[in-house]
Amino acid sequence: MGSLFAARGPAVSSPARLDPQRGVTSPLGFRAASARCGLKSAGEDVALIVSDAPSAAAGVFTTNQVYAHCVGRGREVTARGEARAILVNAGNANACNGPHGAESDRRMAASAAALLGLPEEQVLTASTGVIGHPLPVERIEGAAPLLVSALSTGAEADARAAAAIMTTDLVPKLAAVEVDQPGARFRIGGICKGSGMIAPRLAPPHATMLCFLTTDAAIAPAPLRQALVEAVRVTFNRVTVDGDTSTNDMVLLLANGASGTHIQSEEGFALFGAALTELCAYLARSVARDGEGATKLVEVHVRGAETEEDAERAARAIAESPLVKTALFGNDPNWGRILAAAGRSGASLCPETASVAVGPVTVYAGGERAQYSAEEARRAISGEEVRITLDLGRGASEATFWTCDLSYDYVRINAEYHT
Amino acid sequence: MGSLFAARGPAVSSPARLDPQRGVTSPLGFRAASARCGLKSAGEDVALIVSDAPSAAAGVFTTNQVYAHCVGRGREVTARGEARAILVNAGNANACNGPHGAESDRRMAASAAALLGLPEEQVLTASTGVIGHPLPVERIEGAAPLLVSALSTGAEADARAAAAIMTTDLVPKLAAVEVDQPGARFRIGGICKGSGMIAPRLAPPHATMLCFLTTDAAIAPAPLRQALVEAVRVTFNRVTVDGDTSTNDMVLLLANGASGTHIQSEEGFALFGAALTELCAYLARSVARDGEGATKLVEVHVRGAETEEDAERAARAIAESPLVKTALFGNDPNWGRILAAAGRSGASLCPETASVAVGPVTVYAGGERAQYSAEEARRAISGEEVRITLDLGRGASEATFWTCDLSYDYVRINAEYHT
Repeated sequence: MGSLFAARGPAVSSPARLDPQRGVTSPLGFRAASARCGLKSAGEDVALIVSDAPSAAAGVFTTNQVYAHCVGRGREVTARGEARAILVNAGNANACNGPHGAESDRRMAASAAALLGLPEEQVLTASTGVIGHPLPVERIEGAAPLLVSALSTGAEADARAAAAIMTTDLVPKLAAVEVDQPGARFRIGGICKGSGMIAPRLAPPHATMLCFLTTDAAIAPAPLRQALVEAVRVTFNRVTVDGDTSTNDMVLLLANGASGTHIQSEEGFALFGAALTELCAYLARSVARDGEGATKLVEVHVRGAETEEDAERAARAIAESPLVKTALFGNDPNWGRILAAAGRSGASLCPETASVAVGPVTVYAGGERAQYSAEEARRAISGEEVRITLDLGRGASEATFWTCDLSYDYVRINAEYHT
Repeated sequence: MGSLFAARGPAVSSPARLDPQRGVTSPLGFRAASARCGLKSAGEDVALIVSDAPSAAAGVFTTNQVYAHCVGRGREVTARGEARAILVNAGNANACNGPHGAESDRRMAASAAALLGLPEEQVLTASTGVIGHPLPVERIEGAAPLLVSALSTGAEADARAAAAIMTTDLVPKLAAVEVDQPGARFRIGGICKGSGMIAPRLAPPHATMLCFLTTDAAIAPAPLRQALVEAVRVTFNRVTVDGDTSTNDMVLLLANGASGTHIQSEEGFALFGAALTELCAYLARSVARDGEGATKLVEVHVRGAETEEDAERAARAIAESPLVKTALFGNDPNWGRILAAAGRSGASLCPETASVAVGPVTVYAGGERAQYSAEEARRAISGEEVRITLDLGRGASEATFWTCDLSYDYVRINAEYHT
């Protein structure tokens, strides 16, 4: 499907070329594999990503105080700034499983480490699925030899790894960007999953949104982490499906330097950051578009705010409002609900200076309903991609969130899903 | 339907006797009437409540920065502390209607004031319904003579007024309490509406939840307001259907002294406060029970918190979580979602000390799934009333919220409702 937003990330310009068919093995020196070990009812459910050379590692993790065992371990590993592999399972979150859960997580890492000849602390782990069911780690251990022997590169390896980490997702999410400039040639690739329990609020030392990124740029752990934090702040942290921040959200980034391009100068860092942000924005939109039960991707753009925090507050409140989201499902340009959500958000707002547009159609301005064609407004809201713009008319700050509508299928998926 | 919670309000003991068949005309010296003026597609849609004698008045209003014209006017009237009448319409929120909206609201008050021989500023107004559609105030003006001539007392007048103010509500909400003690005999009555856009965050100088309360106790405006604020804090402000705080929420309370009981002593004030809180808790639960699409009333009780604010944060996050609410609709005791919602709430929480119970069944404790019978847990969650208890195990503070589940009907009601 064509995308209104495909070319629009946040307010950064990037010279990167995006390839929606590639993923984590697009950067040189990375291989991936996937297999089935029986955690999901069908399909592959474990994936392994490996760098052939030592890699800097950075990660951001859920801020939920209830967090999975892999999150606790991931914080420790990324704090050291180095890792070579990421082993992921889908179908079991391995969260809230007590001491047994922590041990299972460690065994998961150990199974890959032994076969790869790496120290255990060089293997990151990630899990997604049901909370509070003991992880049958022996199944993952059993699949590890197959995974390691199947490691490969290319579009098929990327796509299979992206599919293996899916839970309620309907489509795999992957992309890679390539920067090719004099003195700077590198690639960044990523795979991502997430459909429900999506409102990542990721912080550095801390969805179930999972995203695994690789790059063959050479960049030290500290600037790598800085670039990741900044990219996530304006992309994944501005995606919300249901407002429910998961116990397992994480974004990991490995950098192995295989391209020979060193990111050291301020310009180089800006270039790397812009390319990384473009990739993250693409993947973040793909999560919102595939939100549980979604019939449309919704971009909520708040501008004219006094501060960026105000713009974020208003945009998040609109993007998470059940009344706004059901109106979107019903193709109703209900600006009253949009304005009311912003009004309760805590953002500084004056109804007289604010205006609301759905697509190109201004539906509210000057303290009352604008003059508009109901037909045009309905058309603007009826597509597979809808943009809502709220101008607060108070300042120069802005923020964009991505979400989806709230449909019968969201209720079906989450009411029929049983623990 | 029998209620598990009927006898349980917040932690106050009240000697009041509650009558679920009576409402605003239970207190002496109050009359009410209702009529149809054509704002709703069917049924009566205007109601008038009048005190025969001068009355102290108090009100709390939505904290939404986008607020209806009646809210702005209501703040001014209640700041003066005196009012004799409340005129309410259902079917049009008269919000975001520019200068025309403010004038319509004033004309609404004037129409009743003229017929009642009162100054305009003695008549409070309230509206509920669609936002941003000009109010056809001439219809209300046209109905005013009928309303005034029909003013009466009794159970029928109470029930009709409660029905006239309904929008998406399925049942009228009314009740009265009577206190009969040596030296203290008074009544408090109320009618209430609200089903969607329900997450009142009411503050003193500031759903669409509407609640109108009357009492024949004699109490000065300042303590009247204090009693109302405290009662609302632990009742209406702890109801949430969808997290969407309305532009029109208000709770108004008139006190005309017709009982001859003066509330002056500390004991008298405590007695009045307890009776008022009991009535408000009953009406608040009735709002949650009748939430849009609700199949069950859910009480979320958080205890063992370090502070009451922490308990409120965790309880609100659980009560507003779409994942928790869809699990409730599916009769799934999904404690992972409950715990994850609390974990992202900002309340201080440690997974190891926390425990979760559904009804009497402890489902999570000591950092992992508790040993419990899946059958018992499912039975506990499958009734028309469900209690979720989260013990944070950190302190002695607690809070109770009331909400409902999230069903297909919530989506249907709000996606099919068109502006």
